[in-house]
Amino acid sequence: MKKSKHKRRRRPPIGASPGTLVVPEGSPAPRLRAMHYTAETLHEVGIASLGELDGLTRQGGFLWLDVHGLGDERVIRAIGERFELHRLEVEDVVHVHQRPKIEPYEKHLFLVASMIRMVDGAMDIEQLSLFVGADFVLTFQEREGNGDVLDPVRERVRQAKGTIRRSMPCYLAYAILDAIVDAYFPVMDEIGTRLEGLEDAVLERQRPEMLRELNEIRAHLLKLRRIVSSQRDALLSMTKEPLSFVTDDVRLYLRDVADHCVQIADLIEAQREIGAGLLNTYLTLIANRTNDVMKVLTIIATIFIPLTFLVGVYGMNFEYMPELEWPWAYPALLAIMLAMGLAMVAYFRRKGWMG
Amino acid sequence: MKKSKHKRRRRPPIGASPGTLVVPEGSPAPRLRAMHYTAETLHEVGIASLGELDGLTRQGGFLWLDVHGLGDERVIRAIGERFELHRLEVEDVVHVHQRPKIEPYEKHLFLVASMIRMVDGAMDIEQLSLFVGADFVLTFQEREGNGDVLDPVRERVRQAKGTIRRSMPCYLAYAILDAIVDAYFPVMDEIGTRLEGLEDAVLERQRPEMLRELNEIRAHLLKLRRIVSSQRDALLSMTKEPLSFVTDDVRLYLRDVADHCVQIADLIEAQREIGAGLLNTYLTLIANRTNDVMKVLTIIATIFIPLTFLVGVYGMNFEYMPELEWPWAYPALLAIMLAMGLAMVAYFRRKGWMG
Amino acid sequence: MKKSKHKRRRRPPIGASPGTLVVPEGSPAPRLRAMHYTAETLHEVGIASLGELDGLTRQGGFLWLDVHGLGDERVIRAIGERFELHRLEVEDVVHVHQRPKIEPYEKHLFLVASMIRMVDGAMDIEQLSLFVGADFVLTFQEREGNGDVLDPVRERVRQAKGTIRRSMPCYLAYAILDAIVDAYFPVMDEIGTRLEGLEDAVLERQRPEMLRELNEIRAHLLKLRRIVSSQRDALLSMTKEPLSFVTDDVRLYLRDVADHCVQIADLIEAQREIGAGLLNTYLTLIANRTNDVMKVLTIIATIFIPLTFLVGVYGMNFEYMPELEWPWAYPALLAIMLAMGLAMVAYFRRKGWMG
Amino acid sequence: MKKSKHKRRRRPPIGASPGTLVVPEGSPAPRLRAMHYTAETLHEVGIASLGELDGLTRQGGFLWLDVHGLGDERVIRAIGERFELHRLEVEDVVHVHQRPKIEPYEKHLFLVASMIRMVDGAMDIEQLSLFVGADFVLTFQEREGNGDVLDPVRERVRQAKGTIRRSMPCYLAYAILDAIVDAYFPVMDEIGTRLEGLEDAVLERQRPEMLRELNEIRAHLLKLRRIVSSQRDALLSMTKEPLSFVTDDVRLYLRDVADHCVQIADLIEAQREIGAGLLNTYLTLIANRTNDVMKVLTIIATIFIPLTFLVGVYGMNFEYMPELEWPWAYPALLAIMLAMGLAMVAYFRRKGWMG
Amino acid sequence: MKKSKHKRRRRPPIGASPGTLVVPEGSPAPRLRAMHYTAETLHEVGIASLGELDGLTRQGGFLWLDVHGLGDERVIRAIGERFELHRLEVEDVVHVHQRPKIEPYEKHLFLVASMIRMVDGAMDIEQLSLFVGADFVLTFQEREGNGDVLDPVRERVRQAKGTIRRSMPCYLAYAILDAIVDAYFPVMDEIGTRLEGLEDAVLERQRPEMLRELNEIRAHLLKLRRIVSSQRDALLSMTKEPLSFVTDDVRLYLRDVADHCVQIADLIEAQREIGAGLLNTYLTLIANRTNDVMKVLTIIATIFIPLTFLVGVYGMNFEYMPELEWPWAYPALLAIMLAMGLAMVAYFRRKGWMG
Repeated sequence: MKKSKHKRRRRPPIGASPGTLVVPEGSPAPRLRAMHYTAETLHEVGIASLGELDGLTRQGGFLWLDVHGLGDERVIRAIGERFELHRLEVEDVVHVHQRPKIEPYEKHLFLVASMIRMVDGAMDIEQLSLFVGADFVLTFQEREGNGDVLDPVRERVRQAKGTIRRSMPCYLAYAILDAIVDAYFPVMDEIGTRLEGLEDAVLERQRPEMLRELNEIRAHLLKLRRIVSSQRDALLSMTKEPLSFVTDDVRLYLRDVADHCVQIADLIEAQREIGAGLLNTYLTLIANRTNDVMKVLTIIATIFIPLTFLVGVYGMNFEYMPELEWPWAYPALLAIMLAMGLAMVAYFRRKGWMG
Repeated sequence: MKKSKHKRRRRPPIGASPGTLVVPEGSPAPRLRAMHYTAETLHEVGIASLGELDGLTRQGGFLWLDVHGLGDERVIRAIGERFELHRLEVEDVVHVHQRPKIEPYEKHLFLVASMIRMVDGAMDIEQLSLFVGADFVLTFQEREGNGDVLDPVRERVRQAKGTIRRSMPCYLAYAILDAIVDAYFPVMDEIGTRLEGLEDAVLERQRPEMLRELNEIRAHLLKLRRIVSSQRDALLSMTKEPLSFVTDDVRLYLRDVADHCVQIADLIEAQREIGAGLLNTYLTLIANRTNDVMKVLTIIATIFIPLTFLVGVYGMNFEYMPELEWPWAYPALLAIMLAMGLAMVAYFRRKGWMG
Repeated sequence: MKKSKHKRRRRPPIGASPGTLVVPEGSPAPRLRAMHYTAETLHEVGIASLGELDGLTRQGGFLWLDVHGLGDERVIRAIGERFELHRLEVEDVVHVHQRPKIEPYEKHLFLVASMIRMVDGAMDIEQLSLFVGADFVLTFQEREGNGDVLDPVRERVRQAKGTIRRSMPCYLAYAILDAIVDAYFPVMDEIGTRLEGLEDAVLERQRPEMLRELNEIRAHLLKLRRIVSSQRDALLSMTKEPLSFVTDDVRLYLRDVADHCVQIADLIEAQREIGAGLLNTYLTLIANRTNDVMKVLTIIATIFIPLTFLVGVYGMNFEYMPELEWPWAYPALLAIMLAMGLAMVAYFRRKGWMG
Repeated sequence: MKKSKHKRRRRPPIGASPGTLVVPEGSPAPRLRAMHYTAETLHEVGIASLGELDGLTRQGGFLWLDVHGLGDERVIRAIGERFELHRLEVEDVVHVHQRPKIEPYEKHLFLVASMIRMVDGAMDIEQLSLFVGADFVLTFQEREGNGDVLDPVRERVRQAKGTIRRSMPCYLAYAILDAIVDAYFPVMDEIGTRLEGLEDAVLERQRPEMLRELNEIRAHLLKLRRIVSSQRDALLSMTKEPLSFVTDDVRLYLRDVADHCVQIADLIEAQREIGAGLLNTYLTLIANRTNDVMKVLTIIATIFIPLTFLVGVYGMNFEYMPELEWPWAYPALLAIMLAMGLAMVAYFRRKGWMG
Repeated sequence: MKKSKHKRRRRPPIGASPGTLVVPEGSPAPRLRAMHYTAETLHEVGIASLGELDGLTRQGGFLWLDVHGLGDERVIRAIGERFELHRLEVEDVVHVHQRPKIEPYEKHLFLVASMIRMVDGAMDIEQLSLFVGADFVLTFQEREGNGDVLDPVRERVRQAKGTIRRSMPCYLAYAILDAIVDAYFPVMDEIGTRLEGLEDAVLERQRPEMLRELNEIRAHLLKLRRIVSSQRDALLSMTKEPLSFVTDDVRLYLRDVADHCVQIADLIEAQREIGAGLLNTYLTLIANRTNDVMKVLTIIATIFIPLTFLVGVYGMNFEYMPELEWPWAYPALLAIMLAMGLAMVAYFRRKGWMG
């Protein structure tokens, strides 16, 4: 039995009260990691209980609380209460599969972004829920790992000389979003490479498996387009929301990230067009090939069927067939048949069916 | 005789005066069920005459009047008068097949929503007409049953500790709409499963019935898209209408429900794309298969037709055919024919028509 | 000789002065019918000369002047002068084939609506030009008859108890528009029935005539879509124009008629989708059938062509063919050929080409 | 050698200073014709030098300067200076191939319109540049002739009793634009007739030339759509520009011309749909016909190939073939073969492949 | 091994700090060329160190600094500091592959434009980054050469009598943009010529290579469309930005350049339509040809297969076959077979399958 490819999302039961938390199946228990920084100091610690945060934030500075794993409803809820998140926001954090979006609240901004990687030809999408306040950044990821995307940002926080350390939390949020969007480019590259390979393969040989792969790629592109366009909208509306804790400079940077989204959307459209062209090529090549096969059959049949009829005539056993007794009849017939065959070949040549 | 699949809607005769009520054919007589609640108290009673309502509402609190069945024009009209509904609204209640929509009136809000279920592979759509006022919620459904969608909401009203009991009627309306929209997800899941099954089936074998099913699924998706997009628009405009009896908190929740509609619209688009890909796959596989069939025919015919001609030549009865008397002519001819056959096979191999 | 299906519109000569009236070819001479009504009284008379109207309207009340036939330029022009219509409006009345539209003037509103019927499978579109003023409604139709659409409205005017008699002329205009839009539903039903029949017919047998009918239906749907969307726009802008002689209540009713237009537009889209699906079905079924035909040919040819070659070999007349003298050669060959045939059948079975 | 169909436009060299005039190749030297009119008087003279205009306009009244031919850069530039046109406008006059557009300047309005005719099945597009000021209308055409479109307007100016003579120049401009747009209808009619003829021809016989013609028609329709939509936009914005020298009445008339553009756009859409349907019909009919051809082949081959094998069997020369000596063997075989043939025919009948 | 056609863009590593400069691979070291001009004077010098600029600009006048090559990060950064560019702007200069865009800053305007040439059938796109301030124009190009597009502009600066020398820098910027957009026309011409050639070739013979070329052309057109539409948007928003250093006259000229973009967009749409038509033609011609091939096969097979069966009958060796001994049997059979053949030919004639 084949396993279903259609991933069912876990959802709260129909009619459940809002704010009901259904943690994603298989997500590990939350692991909390805090980075508390000022331009001069940096404390990076694993957090076991939320109370530890108070010690960190007491002396001012900014906090990045980095949560991996959504497997324990109570921890998530506790964080929500600590940072005064709305219960709909907390719900959105665990109900991963949101479109990228932005929701401004009075004291913080809630952002959903999609981190995308290609893993063995499949598109792996992970939701990043990001909260920015005046003095904190809060990120939630479903899984451990995938650190490759955010790790460079963490590294830059650790470097005392970087801009992040000297800037407001909104700059850190920008750095995270920039890293996420930049990670779309390698995904596009991989899809581009696959499309290219497919194009070469189709020109050489047409097989139904290629169609399946093409459909898969087009599904990827469709999904990507949706994500990227939501991401761009979210980024642009973030540059426009009049929020006290987003600086003008960061707005400019966010517009730049939105520009990258537009570039990616362009690439997606170009690749969708290539995909559509590929399907046409595939269909046309099959039609061409069927035409070639038919021509071979027709040439052979048209040359030999009449000749076979002719030799059949002189294979008849009638008693009165005068030709049979003529001594030159056999070579004459051979000559006639040769002439007929050559005439046919000439005819097909002229029709352009040969060579 | 096949029964027509095209369901005709019952409509008032052309040119009839507006407000003419034509109750849906086959709809049972209305059965009224009232839930009168405050945070502390709950009265749930069946209502035989509308006068009974006065007794319930005298002491304040909120009322949910839940009407099942639209089969008696007078009852519907009486309810309309009791709650001061416009006669166009009453008309919309019984002329089920409305698109989801919202119409704000001075003292209440009129909402049409679509409850959707899959029943034996067919999409069952039932209209829910919902009125929200300052102290009441009024719902009309065409049929008994279908309670599976609203039953959890009724259950939550019964629980003294739920949010509904402590909130305004607009919160109850939200809970109902949320339950309705959540019920779209299992419908999408069923359609997804069917598309998946169809995809596997098409790759294995192409049969016209599959096309019929594909067309059916696409019709479902088209209908769903229309409903979901109207539903979303209605929800969003409900968050924006400046109405005294819709609280800010509920507006936020409604935006969340509208977000769910957007998610469903995304799923619909993805499935429509899969459907379009499936049709292409179908057509291409048939073209591929015809090509394969033609190749087999061409290979066989091209090998044997010339050989058959050759043996025909030596089956002729000419008296003067010197070859016939040569003792090694027969084995030589067999050898020549074998060589010709092998040459043909080699030729087809090189052309890639074999294997 | 086939008659041209492309109906040429009669138009004034190019460069003609505006307001040039070219009455529609074949339209009968105008027949005027006046209904003068108050809540209590009703005078319904045929009008021979426009002067007769003065007698009717002297004592107040409202007038519906109902003109059938546009065949006499002078009469139309005289009516235009009597009701102070702009000469561009009068031009639009006789140049039937306008899109539904609305044009507000200071003292009246000019509306063009399309009355549609199916006559013998062809769509019959007739323009209704409607003028509403503070105390009159003026309607122009190209032809006699077609009364089936407006007759119920006339009947309602005659009934003393109806709303029309107690309301402003704008209510009568609404009643007329409502009747016209309601008449679109049976047209949609007939098209739906034809599409359904076509769907069943295509699944049974594919014939080019069906394609022609499908193209015809799609042309109908395209035309309908354009009309319905213009009609909806006209209705909606009528609800928004700040005109003294359109009451708020009627605006509400007009929004309801516009809603019906949206419902019809939905039906049209659904049927267009069905039509597109039908074309795909048609093409796919032909491809399927060609595939079936090819398989039969290939099976037969592949089984018998090699066998025919074999029997041809033993029909040769070589003197030295030792097999011919072996006594068991003939039954052995028959056995071999049977085995070859069965092997082929087994091969085609395995390939799924049989049954 | 085939001549290129792709008409290259003459353009100033890249990087040339703006206002560089490159007169259209082959355009004759400008011929100027002035009509100076008041309600009572009319002077119509050919103009050799621009100085002559001063004599005409000294006594008030309105001037229509009608320029045919753009072949002399200096004349065009001189006219531009005389009427105080911007050098970009003058550039647009000679760089024919502009889209219809409107550009309001302080003292005049600049309009580009497209005059279209069908000449031997090809669409002939000529640019009309029109300037309207408070007391003049200035028109430029690339070629002599094409007078058929504007001649009726000239005739109306000559008639003392016409509206043009009693109105402002903006009315003359309207009359010219109305004549140009009205001339689109016969173009649509000709395209409609060709499409119709093509439709009939395709149903009778499918030939690649038809496809070429269809592509040509679709290219025409595409071009027309672009022109008509720009023309409509230009007209509508002319009704909205707050210009002192365009009267309210003319604005109303221009809206009417814009309405005609909408009607033409409708016709274009309908014809594009017919064209798309035609292509589908073409492809389907070929598929149908191939299917028919295949069926004939398959029926013949399936009936006779097995029979040919059978007679081949009894043409073998084995010494031991007992059947050959049975006296009733030959008639029995004939009977068997007849039965086989009839069985096959019956089988094909049942499959619906015959008749 | 085939080289990948998919050009990877060089990008800063994911998560890198913004403003990180990654110079384009293979770009030569920057070569700076300054033109300092007033209406009367012109100094044109190569610049080795940025300090030299101070000497030039000390006495007023305007400066065009023309930078070729982006291969040295420090030089670019130094120029950025000298002209007070934002670090995101500097980043955009070196990250060539931007869409055309415009970004207004307080003291200057930043524009990205695309210079396009056809080189050996491939589209060569080079980014021009342009900065306009109150007294300077700054341009960056990735490569040496491509001077053909901007050289005429440079020449016009050198001519003392040209408009550029007497105008503000914004006029020079306009001249550069005008030259860039004008250079799109020859690109369109080349694509048009290729499409035309392809059209002729397809009508003569259908080969898969043509499909590949068609796909390539469509990819070009898609890319061009995107560039041209962004270019137009950028130009239009430049005419609207309220900037002190862009004069009203130049705004008018820029609108003219935007008009050229619209003309090019029209050409692109027309060519896309031709491309789509070409694909349909291709597919239909193959279907037509397969049909022709099938007809030849069917005619030959249908005539000769039954005849071959007939001669096979009389080649049987039954002892009792009375016909064999009749003296007129052989000529009679020949006559019958001739009649059968002619009947078949007549049948195919009537079906229209011959000639």
